[in-house]
Amino acid sequence: MTQNGLPISFLSDFGLADEFVGVVHGVLGKLAPESRVIDVGHGTPRGDVRAAALALTRAIQYLPEGVALVVVDPGVGSERRALALETEWGYFVGPDNGVLSPAVAMVGGATVIVSIDNPEARIPSPGETFHGRDVFAPAAGLLASGEASILDLGAELAPGSVQPLLLPLPETEGNIVTGEAWWVDSFGNVQTNIGPDDLNAIGLTPGSTLTVKVGATLHTIPWATAYSDVDSGEALIHVDSVGLIAIAVRDGAADEELNLSSGVSVTLAGTGSTPAG
Amino acid sequence: MTQNGLPISFLSDFGLADEFVGVVHGVLGKLAPESRVIDVGHGTPRGDVRAAALALTRAIQYLPEGVALVVVDPGVGSERRALALETEWGYFVGPDNGVLSPAVAMVGGATVIVSIDNPEARIPSPGETFHGRDVFAPAAGLLASGEASILDLGAELAPGSVQPLLLPLPETEGNIVTGEAWWVDSFGNVQTNIGPDDLNAIGLTPGSTLTVKVGATLHTIPWATAYSDVDSGEALIHVDSVGLIAIAVRDGAADEELNLSSGVSVTLAGTGSTPAG
Amino acid sequence: MTQNGLPISFLSDFGLADEFVGVVHGVLGKLAPESRVIDVGHGTPRGDVRAAALALTRAIQYLPEGVALVVVDPGVGSERRALALETEWGYFVGPDNGVLSPAVAMVGGATVIVSIDNPEARIPSPGETFHGRDVFAPAAGLLASGEASILDLGAELAPGSVQPLLLPLPETEGNIVTGEAWWVDSFGNVQTNIGPDDLNAIGLTPGSTLTVKVGATLHTIPWATAYSDVDSGEALIHVDSVGLIAIAVRDGAADEELNLSSGVSVTLAGTGSTPAG
Repeated sequence: MTQNGLPISFLSDFGLADEFVGVVHGVLGKLAPESRVIDVGHGTPRGDVRAAALALTRAIQYLPEGVALVVVDPGVGSERRALALETEWGYFVGPDNGVLSPAVAMVGGATVIVSIDNPEARIPSPGETFHGRDVFAPAAGLLASGEASILDLGAELAPGSVQPLLLPLPETEGNIVTGEAWWVDSFGNVQTNIGPDDLNAIGLTPGSTLTVKVGATLHTIPWATAYSDVDSGEALIHVDSVGLIAIAVRDGAADEELNLSSGVSVTLAGTGSTPAG
Repeated sequence: MTQNGLPISFLSDFGLADEFVGVVHGVLGKLAPESRVIDVGHGTPRGDVRAAALALTRAIQYLPEGVALVVVDPGVGSERRALALETEWGYFVGPDNGVLSPAVAMVGGATVIVSIDNPEARIPSPGETFHGRDVFAPAAGLLASGEASILDLGAELAPGSVQPLLLPLPETEGNIVTGEAWWVDSFGNVQTNIGPDDLNAIGLTPGSTLTVKVGATLHTIPWATAYSDVDSGEALIHVDSVGLIAIAVRDGAADEELNLSSGVSVTLAGTGSTPAG
Repeated sequence: MTQNGLPISFLSDFGLADEFVGVVHGVLGKLAPESRVIDVGHGTPRGDVRAAALALTRAIQYLPEGVALVVVDPGVGSERRALALETEWGYFVGPDNGVLSPAVAMVGGATVIVSIDNPEARIPSPGETFHGRDVFAPAAGLLASGEASILDLGAELAPGSVQPLLLPLPETEGNIVTGEAWWVDSFGNVQTNIGPDDLNAIGLTPGSTLTVKVGATLHTIPWATAYSDVDSGEALIHVDSVGLIAIAVRDGAADEELNLSSGVSVTLAGTGSTPAG
């Protein structure tokens, strides 16, 4: 594969039951025949903009520079704009609902933003517009092949006019950090929005024992550096492969054991402190 | 990716639990190392020839011209022939059970049809023939790479000897159109076999209110041009992205709300008419 | 796609719900931009080393020579080594838990084995090591692109130090062969570890009628050469597309009909013999 086309990394909530993902690949294959297409994943829960935004943010530094195409779009059919953004990493294409914002911020922000509204950059539909097929894939394909510049796709937008994604930050009160479950992976591991620095700041380090409060329940869990630091079936706190504080159960599912799901509040403290949540 | 190999678009009912899809990709990678392979999808319900035929028909105009490989084959092991067809679009490879017929018709019909019966075009199996791996993938790979011409694959067949796929047509009686649910996508949207022209012919247009009869139940549903024309949870009739009349529920699943599944009869009329079904 | 990069065949138990598979593809796309990547499958049951080893063994002869990347690794985080092996077929990369061993043996064994412990061949993680992303994918990508030789990846190991995978062999006593269910595919077909030679040796051939004992239940099943040899709903014994004795039910699921799952003992004999199991 000679790199005459930029690689395209494609993330959606289409699932794999229908031919939606395949049709988008078809459009990309027509418009960018030299480009590799990487499926970042299509298992995002339907319309879950935050989950898709976080997945892209976790993945972006591992994806080859080129075009990121994201189609998670619960507002499809409404007034929501279709965006293409240029960054140091490459191009981002997707709906103006915040799904691109954290990853774009992580790679240093956008230098150019356009609304994909040039009819010549779209595929006419025989009926309702299928935005993934008719708007987003053509824009990604044209950018990847170099057949269009970003300014060919539509009107340039001011940076401030793009939809941000509000992501919760952890809060520290005294010796207690309150954050939330951010992602439960398919192994049942629970990633939080808390970083190791947040815990260091209240005197906790690997080896500390923590009190973890979920709802009204308190758990005592060690901050481990390896799963093998705890027995099978036991919970551990660790810095996960993305660099965030996560809760896991060795050979088990932490989400079930601790009754955690995405968005649930989690309070951490040293065992000497009482997390009031 | 230099286009020294035709792109191959691959549709099956293998699912993704086993290595079947991967093994077919392996054979294609060996025989057509220069070809891009697009997975149109592998989630067709097992042995559902009609569902696969319709999926291919919806997708074909968006797939890059090359080779369409379809393996949905409930009659595997019986006398059913393996086909390769040449068309204006490119080549079609799959079983002689009708699964290719609607898409081949859509691209203008076949100019050459062969039965893939040349043993040199097949991979010998250590046991039972796995047709996807041993017959269909080799034929697709040889055609994509140009290593074989279609006439190298086996004996030429007369067009009339190929299995058609009988697809139901909607029927109009007076001011009432009766069709059927044709496809329920994974969002719960229900595509019918009825076109907007069928409704125009009985005086209905976007903005009309329709009576929809499913089983013994009558529903009153507007013909909308956008989901946002109705409230959340409300049903709408619209022309979907394939150009057919579909029934959807905004933020909901029409198949559940209206008790519809593939093959179920649907009768449409203006609200002034009584659909007798 | 010019073959300036070796093809990479990737098998894991990651599933497709998260972005894990996509991130590995991203790393491969960065390090081996000229290589085709084939997904052998990602549906192996979590941590099922034997299932993955058998899937790779079934697939290997159909995969283009290059790099086989396998990430099924229940011991992740323990002392288990990461391996790269050179064979006549190409390279194998994966954990030292036996998952590679049967396929490596099938292609003639390894000529060079290394432990991937050179930090320069790994991607540094912001937290816990995600071995698929940080260790195995980089090794596969470097080998595929030719950016590293296998000896660049780490210290060479003696062949005998690699973890084997113990696979059960069938046993014959008198006129009775006892083996086990080895794989149930998603169609419900049950592959055993018994070969047709094992049955030939006790006087059974295609056309014979067999007594099949599962648990305490005896079934009478013909050895057929085609599904159409039996009626719909009836069981048959046949040599499957991998060349092993399998039990199937025409238009049905043999695993449910015979109460079989992977690892369950199966005893076969001619109808004149009583399988004591």
